[in-house]
Amino acid sequence: MKIVIDGMGGDNAPQAVVEGACMAVNEYGVEIVITGDQDLIQKELEKHTYDKDKISIVHTTQVITNEEKPVQAIRKKKDSSMVVALNMVKNKEADIVISAGSTGALLSGGVFIVKRIKGISRPCICATLPTIDGGATMLADTGANVDCDVQNLKDFAFMTDIYARKVLKKENPRLALANIGTEEGKGNDLLKKSYEEFKQLEGINFVGNMETRDILNGVCDIVVCDGFIGNIILKTVEGSVLSLFKKLKEAMLSTTKSKIGAILMKSELKEIKDLLDYTSYGGAPFLGVEGGVIKAHGSSNAKSIKNAIYQGIKFHEGQVVEEIKKYVEGKEK
Amino acid sequence: MKIVIDGMGGDNAPQAVVEGACMAVNEYGVEIVITGDQDLIQKELEKHTYDKDKISIVHTTQVITNEEKPVQAIRKKKDSSMVVALNMVKNKEADIVISAGSTGALLSGGVFIVKRIKGISRPCICATLPTIDGGATMLADTGANVDCDVQNLKDFAFMTDIYARKVLKKENPRLALANIGTEEGKGNDLLKKSYEEFKQLEGINFVGNMETRDILNGVCDIVVCDGFIGNIILKTVEGSVLSLFKKLKEAMLSTTKSKIGAILMKSELKEIKDLLDYTSYGGAPFLGVEGGVIKAHGSSNAKSIKNAIYQGIKFHEGQVVEEIKKYVEGKEK
Repeated sequence: MKIVIDGMGGDNAPQAVVEGACMAVNEYGVEIVITGDQDLIQKELEKHTYDKDKISIVHTTQVITNEEKPVQAIRKKKDSSMVVALNMVKNKEADIVISAGSTGALLSGGVFIVKRIKGISRPCICATLPTIDGGATMLADTGANVDCDVQNLKDFAFMTDIYARKVLKKENPRLALANIGTEEGKGNDLLKKSYEEFKQLEGINFVGNMETRDILNGVCDIVVCDGFIGNIILKTVEGSVLSLFKKLKEAMLSTTKSKIGAILMKSELKEIKDLLDYTSYGGAPFLGVEGGVIKAHGSSNAKSIKNAIYQGIKFHEGQVVEEIKKYVEGKEK
Repeated sequence: MKIVIDGMGGDNAPQAVVEGACMAVNEYGVEIVITGDQDLIQKELEKHTYDKDKISIVHTTQVITNEEKPVQAIRKKKDSSMVVALNMVKNKEADIVISAGSTGALLSGGVFIVKRIKGISRPCICATLPTIDGGATMLADTGANVDCDVQNLKDFAFMTDIYARKVLKKENPRLALANIGTEEGKGNDLLKKSYEEFKQLEGINFVGNMETRDILNGVCDIVVCDGFIGNIILKTVEGSVLSLFKKLKEAMLSTTKSKIGAILMKSELKEIKDLLDYTSYGGAPFLGVEGGVIKAHGSSNAKSIKNAIYQGIKFHEGQVVEEIKKYVEGKEK
């Protein structure tokens, strides 16, 4: 198995990417290619101890930024660390590509370079949200498709179900539709029609509508929605948790008494912060393209990169792409 | 000014409703009518000291529950505490109606009994979210209209702007569209078209798209979106905050050390909880109908009911309905 990682993508690149890659090599013995500026990456590599046979560099001269228009960037910057990495997966020179760079560019590259699996109406990006019971809920789509139809949501459901079974090893994952009420008949036209069809899906453990008030409570394993709603949910949860932690920190530092209180509660507070740390899950798989494409969080540190690489290993071992193709074959029968 | 309140609506009715009404009479000297079971309400009233001339009861024999289909319930239960209260506003026997009962039924009643203001494409329900800077952000629509067009969003914008100026006394409120990115051109078709038109709105301080990651940070005063998205945002924020507080409470009680820490931080933690307490804002106005209709939170306690009544007073004093009609006249010119 070979994993290629975009060495220049993310807020902390190339430092965090290189360190995370070294950690992954030492821990999992996986073979890694890093794309990016040879000198910069070599300099970072020299800071670490790792098996030199396992990491190689493919030199690239361009970098895609978050400010660029995704499709244009992918088309024009042929020698960017991201495009070169995506091409390696396309050309079967690597099994999985990981990037903490521009989400839009990675998704565009997934579609235009790696290519959509024939028979999948739309690929989706699938985020993992930690829940307060110590588990996690998958949320798809979280931004690849802002306007969706029922068939799109059905494809998201099957692909995420495969991912949950094969990568997260969940048996019979509970799948819900994100909606504004739990009863059948709630929501907009898309949701009403989807509920009707989801009830009849074979092989999916559809548990009905879920109100997003429960999103952190671990009431289901997979939440399906269009990419606009999914992105709104993801950012609202992340934002609410961050704002609350910020306020808590201010409160803790406000008086001498509260400072002492905070010290006494330190390990418990850290535990909650770690529990809800969305970067700990490494990355979001882009499901429905002809290869493993994983988006790591833009603010990934070395540990998140290592986790994303681990996720890539599990993605490949779980033969997610092949399983999605089997689903397409079954659909076309 | 006369306010009518649905005595049987909400999880804590009639106790909380009656207590809240008595508090409001004592504090604001307002005249209140309570609809509901005469005996039950009288019994609750006897527990309190208040000016007996200011509170009267209109006896009703039916109650609308959350489980009933809204439109059917409103049509069939003519002698319910909610329908009778709505009819009093329709017949100008009261200026404002407040209910903590079924949201769906109240909105249906707002449209079918109180009636939509001619020239308003769709009425909207407008929630107030407390923000971590001690302020508040208004969010409209939060559930009255699951599928919207640009004209709907424009009407929501103008009505909420009027409410923010006249009731919340905000000068030049900053208004944003809820979106999945801040740049122009982001989002689904509705959002792209809306951005185009919002840029050209006169009299609205349009500040662009807002990512919901910032929803609790007080970056704007009004957030406009369709009712599906608004309801998702509202429930995701409420749910995330509640889940996190639940986890914090568990953490505080987990060891002797953490318990002592929690005691030392008690006042600061309570301050944050109070700050983000969404029931403290009393209720959500239903804007665009021929009278003041305010939805109090289902779990309202006496203080929330009192706050909703205060909001009703300000709504009437601010002549919100008349101002919305002026907006319609201007629009039709």
